[in-house]
Amino acid sequence: MTSAARPIRVVAFGGGHGLGASLRALRHTAAELLLDITAIVTVGDDGGSSGRLRVERDALLPPGDLRQALAALADEDPTAQLTAQVMQHRFVAMSQPGVSSLPPVVRGPRIERRADRSKDTLAGHTVGNLLLLGLMEMLGDPVRALDHAAAMVGARGRVLPMALHAVGIEADVADATGQTSTIRGQHSVAVADGRVEAVRLEPADPPACPQAVEAVREADWLIFGPGSWYTSVLPHLLVPGLARAIVSSPARRLVTLNLGTDQETQGLSAAGHLGTLQRYLPDLRVDTVLADEKWAGEPEPVRAAALRMGAELVLAPVAVADGSPRHDPEALGVALVPVLGAAR
Amino acid sequence: MTSAARPIRVVAFGGGHGLGASLRALRHTAAELLLDITAIVTVGDDGGSSGRLRVERDALLPPGDLRQALAALADEDPTAQLTAQVMQHRFVAMSQPGVSSLPPVVRGPRIERRADRSKDTLAGHTVGNLLLLGLMEMLGDPVRALDHAAAMVGARGRVLPMALHAVGIEADVADATGQTSTIRGQHSVAVADGRVEAVRLEPADPPACPQAVEAVREADWLIFGPGSWYTSVLPHLLVPGLARAIVSSPARRLVTLNLGTDQETQGLSAAGHLGTLQRYLPDLRVDTVLADEKWAGEPEPVRAAALRMGAELVLAPVAVADGSPRHDPEALGVALVPVLGAAR
Repeated sequence: MTSAARPIRVVAFGGGHGLGASLRALRHTAAELLLDITAIVTVGDDGGSSGRLRVERDALLPPGDLRQALAALADEDPTAQLTAQVMQHRFVAMSQPGVSSLPPVVRGPRIERRADRSKDTLAGHTVGNLLLLGLMEMLGDPVRALDHAAAMVGARGRVLPMALHAVGIEADVADATGQTSTIRGQHSVAVADGRVEAVRLEPADPPACPQAVEAVREADWLIFGPGSWYTSVLPHLLVPGLARAIVSSPARRLVTLNLGTDQETQGLSAAGHLGTLQRYLPDLRVDTVLADEKWAGEPEPVRAAALRMGAELVLAPVAVADGSPRHDPEALGVALVPVLGAAR
Repeated sequence: MTSAARPIRVVAFGGGHGLGASLRALRHTAAELLLDITAIVTVGDDGGSSGRLRVERDALLPPGDLRQALAALADEDPTAQLTAQVMQHRFVAMSQPGVSSLPPVVRGPRIERRADRSKDTLAGHTVGNLLLLGLMEMLGDPVRALDHAAAMVGARGRVLPMALHAVGIEADVADATGQTSTIRGQHSVAVADGRVEAVRLEPADPPACPQAVEAVREADWLIFGPGSWYTSVLPHLLVPGLARAIVSSPARRLVTLNLGTDQETQGLSAAGHLGTLQRYLPDLRVDTVLADEKWAGEPEPVRAAALRMGAELVLAPVAVADGSPRHDPEALGVALVPVLGAAR
């Protein structure tokens, strides 16, 4: 009698495009290894469509990053892909040329009130954000809402929020003269000019999502990064209930380093990125640090920083071929096979 | 060798709640007879959410009535039903009590800009209207958009628009003093105080949806009503390409009469409803008129009016039991079995 192979339970933390890249890579890895994927998503977004939904409709969770994760996990069949595509569809401002869908025949003056674009209040929202908002309002349970949205796109994994309600992100940022000021809001922190000295959540102890805590406890692998380091990767470590689960989980841990720096991490080295994780969660032990061989720079400081967290540094070609600092999902997925598949 | 039974091809015309009742009834009929259901939906709605989407975003079609038809045809499995339910979910104004989904813990003053409800621009829209708008904008093809939305709810039939773009509806309405004025807009016509003397589309010759024309040509049965007579049932007869297809189709025709009058048909008898159809499409022949035995009133004038169109009057108990003028989908579905199933 043989038992069916047990899937490798992988939990990927992040938000936005970085998490999307991580999940798309895992889809490729899943062609080689049986994976059970859970995405745990930051809930600090206060910019754009998500920010407006928090302000205007008290949105329980900012939907944007959750929607991105769902789209990344959507099944490949054409119907699921089209549903994912319309969830990602953003209503563009009607004043832009070429977007009117109105045939010339009804442009006549007798259809009154037509095209009063000054009232175009949907511009900027995505269909998926509004769908997730509707599901959360209707069901009152963000996890049930996300599970249903996942079913709608035939998601090859589960998407969960890191906390049960939206949080604020604030940071102390030092400018070029050394003057430090407090910046409030994930979007403002992400685009602030200066060096981030400290990051905090507001409130400081949001309730962790119980299903996310459970997934961390039962995971074989926890994957941190890539993504906006202070506003998408670190926030998970600042949710007390989730941080405790991460530290005490028997899972192995992987950090996938970014391919460069962005506005919020200017001047921060690859080793510095690892140091930041350790500073916010000193008990965090890491097993593997995955970096691109071209983008990591001089490997020795990175290797030393990895070692301080207990991790081995793995260098692999995981960037896109065109030279831009983006992960190639297929290359990253291939690089993850020996990491996630290694016997304990 | 036996050939598989061919389904009875049924085309139901209408809009809004009336068409929803007709389609829900056909779902019941389909438990007895193999049916292939197509809904052909009016595209004149200019009120509420649909009206705003026409004004603000040049919506190719007003989505509200199309969404109602999709919801009525949604598969019974729980996932499809939940998708249909969220499509029907309407964002209520945030100032209404009890709708805030925000947990008390984040109500503190430090989450700035929170709950500026004066900007609540989504109130009044349904999720499904925004989804259909997004699909139409993204695909540029209303039929493909509707077919995908139908797939999302596992629809047990197809939903098509009567025309390829939104139309205006206008009517000459006589007030109590006999003074006639022209009322523009489906919503204004539906709530106008007075007797409707004439109804027109604007433009007068919108392009019929080719797939709708094709469905009419290949149908076994065409079903008109119930519904708002001037603004949901008649408009199909005013689209020249569709009217020609209706007149020349080899299909049999059924008129399901309303259970009473509404604002737009005050004073119009059951026989008068039939006369109105004949006035706008003199070549329309009808095979069966279905009326509720309690609501039809004195049957003889109705029978005579039916006969003038070539139709037999069938009386059946099709109203809900509570005495309100609404069709009971199950009772109507049962009454349709002998009608639609009768051998030619």
